[in-house]
Amino acid sequence: MRPFKGRDVISVLDFTREEIDYILDKADSIMGLASENPDMLKGKVMAILFFEPSTRTRVSFETAMKRLGGATVDMSEPRRTSIQKGENLTDTIRVVDNYVDVIVIRHPLEGSARLAAEVARNPVINGGSGAEEHPTQALLDLYTIRKEKGRIDGLKIAFVGDLRYGRTVHSLSMALSNYDVKLYLVSPELLRMRREVVEYTSKRIPVEEVDDLDEIIEEVDVLYVTRIQKERFADVSEYMKVKGSYRITLDHVKRMKEDAIIMHPLPRVDEIDYSVDRTPQAKYFKQVYYGLLVRMSLLALILGAVE
Amino acid sequence: MRPFKGRDVISVLDFTREEIDYILDKADSIMGLASENPDMLKGKVMAILFFEPSTRTRVSFETAMKRLGGATVDMSEPRRTSIQKGENLTDTIRVVDNYVDVIVIRHPLEGSARLAAEVARNPVINGGSGAEEHPTQALLDLYTIRKEKGRIDGLKIAFVGDLRYGRTVHSLSMALSNYDVKLYLVSPELLRMRREVVEYTSKRIPVEEVDDLDEIIEEVDVLYVTRIQKERFADVSEYMKVKGSYRITLDHVKRMKEDAIIMHPLPRVDEIDYSVDRTPQAKYFKQVYYGLLVRMSLLALILGAVE
Amino acid sequence: MRPFKGRDVISVLDFTREEIDYILDKADSIMGLASENPDMLKGKVMAILFFEPSTRTRVSFETAMKRLGGATVDMSEPRRTSIQKGENLTDTIRVVDNYVDVIVIRHPLEGSARLAAEVARNPVINGGSGAEEHPTQALLDLYTIRKEKGRIDGLKIAFVGDLRYGRTVHSLSMALSNYDVKLYLVSPELLRMRREVVEYTSKRIPVEEVDDLDEIIEEVDVLYVTRIQKERFADVSEYMKVKGSYRITLDHVKRMKEDAIIMHPLPRVDEIDYSVDRTPQAKYFKQVYYGLLVRMSLLALILGAVE
Repeated sequence: MRPFKGRDVISVLDFTREEIDYILDKADSIMGLASENPDMLKGKVMAILFFEPSTRTRVSFETAMKRLGGATVDMSEPRRTSIQKGENLTDTIRVVDNYVDVIVIRHPLEGSARLAAEVARNPVINGGSGAEEHPTQALLDLYTIRKEKGRIDGLKIAFVGDLRYGRTVHSLSMALSNYDVKLYLVSPELLRMRREVVEYTSKRIPVEEVDDLDEIIEEVDVLYVTRIQKERFADVSEYMKVKGSYRITLDHVKRMKEDAIIMHPLPRVDEIDYSVDRTPQAKYFKQVYYGLLVRMSLLALILGAVE
Repeated sequence: MRPFKGRDVISVLDFTREEIDYILDKADSIMGLASENPDMLKGKVMAILFFEPSTRTRVSFETAMKRLGGATVDMSEPRRTSIQKGENLTDTIRVVDNYVDVIVIRHPLEGSARLAAEVARNPVINGGSGAEEHPTQALLDLYTIRKEKGRIDGLKIAFVGDLRYGRTVHSLSMALSNYDVKLYLVSPELLRMRREVVEYTSKRIPVEEVDDLDEIIEEVDVLYVTRIQKERFADVSEYMKVKGSYRITLDHVKRMKEDAIIMHPLPRVDEIDYSVDRTPQAKYFKQVYYGLLVRMSLLALILGAVE
Repeated sequence: MRPFKGRDVISVLDFTREEIDYILDKADSIMGLASENPDMLKGKVMAILFFEPSTRTRVSFETAMKRLGGATVDMSEPRRTSIQKGENLTDTIRVVDNYVDVIVIRHPLEGSARLAAEVARNPVINGGSGAEEHPTQALLDLYTIRKEKGRIDGLKIAFVGDLRYGRTVHSLSMALSNYDVKLYLVSPELLRMRREVVEYTSKRIPVEEVDDLDEIIEEVDVLYVTRIQKERFADVSEYMKVKGSYRITLDHVKRMKEDAIIMHPLPRVDEIDYSVDRTPQAKYFKQVYYGLLVRMSLLALILGAVE
């Protein structure tokens, strides 16, 4: 296993299964380690460089850094800054790289995080690039499954909703292909998962595309729900029809296995009914906490505070 | 007295007089305690969740947390975030609650802070909700009076200006009703204090509504001035007439008791003439510093760093 | 030499050459001191009060404070805050002054930083005021020259580009007039340096105004490049002509002394060709790092953490 210290985190494909499991193991103990040594990252500074808004991901990273004793600087308002004056991404990265110890970047263009990592001497973490990659979300999703189901191997996992535009499901399906799982892709025709992701994943694990949630609801161990956005449809009536079919209600929960779990990357709008929140299957808020642990684990490893 | 650790701070009515005095006593010593133990809140994180802009309140809370060794994460730009995507307040609170140890919320709707406190497992502090409540402002106002006058009981206190729309005076008049004070409400007819607040307060302490500042200026111990906003008046000429009548000048100060004090929640526009700043009665900038002490006191108590 | 503790930093003219050298000497050792004592500024809080956007300067100051163990509060979004409600600068400073230990201000109006320093009891650092002063930039420019050339005295230094509107070159030329240097001012007629700055500087050191970069390119030790903005020209064709003449390419580098250095305050648009970045003469990204060291040095001195 390559050492984690100084590594970039751009794609889930940058990590072997062994490395992923190592990061998740470390997440199990990181809060305890931070309590024992709250100065673990004292004097270290992380830059947040977000070219797209994202409260959730930003605050998760910031809190992770701060709970380890580190500090953060936020550069996430590009409209008001040097970007406006025409500076290119490479120059921006070179400048930030001189200030901090680690950079978290989120950018609407594919490849931007990879470019940043090539330019920067310090480690770069991809906080979401284009529609393709969101590696720390995939890691926290794996961690949630492992914590709540006790294992990942042997599970039947369904992705439901918009599988085409959500970077979360792309990164997660690639990450899951390291494990012995069966994957169901449940979506309307228009929002099918991108071909290249299906191809990559289906070479390594069984993948089945399904139209109807009812076909698999009783069978799955993990139901991973994503939001369907109205803007994706040319015709609103088409959207209204589709939307209802992939909306999770108490009725679905009753038909699920008792120990199945429901996940969601959040924010949720109404694709999961609020009544579901009170069921034992609902794990999407715990998922948030697990995300904090995984990001603490990653930061501590990459900055060399733990091995 | 109920322990403070883990308590929410939503309304001044959540505290007994004994509890309020305890918080103010702690404010007397908190800066010394923080110097002795600057790591008092090390490893703790506070979320700022402001749905309305407020530099003053935000920075006061942030500085309080940081002077105690804690960290903060700012979520106060709702337009750029998940809120935009349609997430409801309950979900937002549940997410934040997974990251941090205490949440400070400011929201334009009545009841929102209370709702947040019900949803969150961690303590919630109301940083201003609707036009009704601003409990930490009321506490710092009480503290200012106590520090500058040596006591609260026995004083004559006048509120001047817009008593209808200012949440500051609502919270403060309820808080003052715990003490043996006489309250004068000095405002134009249109900006009289809300009936329910007058009713609550006047059952407990003597309250007198007055049109004319001149009637009480020589008598009061505390003059609490608030801003009159032009937007409240349909007729600008009406505004211009009223505005002048409640504007504090050197002439007023000369007629006040020598040891009377002038307070203002700030920001001030021109309702107190700048020449007044140099008089010994002017305490509105000291009030800012007292606010820092009171918020440090509250955070240390609620997070269990002091008893 | 006056003690640094508690001093304001408004203009480079506030410092003698001896004091400037002292700050730069301290910058040499500050990163080591911070490693030995990462709690140097623990419990201290710095306010960022920027009335103009500037990622670079803001993040440089924030990182400097945090690497010394201090904390920061950001007040740099004036549109959303009390300013909007009509509060004047004096009141804003008085409020902030009650919260923090040091204030960094950036303001579009001349004299605003000086005013802030007069109002505040705590030290004020000018992060750029109007078109005239940017003292910390001047100090970091001096430091870059000293580090990369081993000395400042005896050098030939050329400023190239827009010398009229750039506050960087104004502060730097005044700072350089403390040293035994020769200064070339290379710019189009329209963007000549302001008369008062030339007069001040040329009384103390030799200053020569030059139209053509080619006249001095082979001779200089330091080439300090600034950006020419299209908006400064009434006629775009005039801009296009001028722009090309002051754009640094590999061809210029080849004609420079082997040990000459190229500096730029950044952000760079296209006034230095990207191919120049890879030459040993290019020091503009190292300059960024030196800025961090100089700001750490200043903060540690002013807050009394080092002597």
